Amino acid sequence: MMYRAKIEISLKQGHSDPEGETTAESLKELGYPIETTKVSKVYEITLSARSAKEANRLVDEMCRRLLANPTKDNYSFTIEEMQ
Amino acid sequence: MMYRAKIEISLKQGHSDPEGETTAESLKELGYPIETTKVSKVYEITLSARSAKEANRLVDEMCRRLLANPTKDNYSFTIEEMQ
Repeated sequence: MMYRAKIEISLKQGHSDPEGETTAESLKELGYPIETTKVSKVYEITLSARSAKEANRLVDEMCRRLLANPTKDNYSFTIEEMQ
Repeated sequence: MMYRAKIEISLKQGHSDPEGETTAESLKELGYPIETTKVSKVYEITLSARSAKEANRLVDEMCRRLLANPTKDNYSFTIEEMQ
């Protein structure tokens, strides 16, 4: 079965986010009433697995092994079966 | 009123996504049954606006003026009022 996982990797609280800060500055310079900007990354991955449970386990492992840095990143994901 | 906007910027179909391709290769080398990987970016912005409608209009304009490149990017966003 094919599954589509949508994985969001964001910075943990307290870690500096230079890209977000620069974006906020640029938006303020353009006159927008911005308070804060945070940037995160989304991976959309299609994978094959025998069940939703296995897909879940694989994606969680991928996050821990490769996609997220446990020192500075939080991750969350959703999984759906593809038609 | 304060609003929180979550803006997702992704590549239009047909544009090359080297980061996604490299991530897919790395995951395959680790033995994961991956088909494709697409990377996109999420901006979480807090802004002040008089109404949800105005917040919507401002965020759409920010996307067109700064955050998304109309040649290669799609964008979508959601807005919620902050407590």
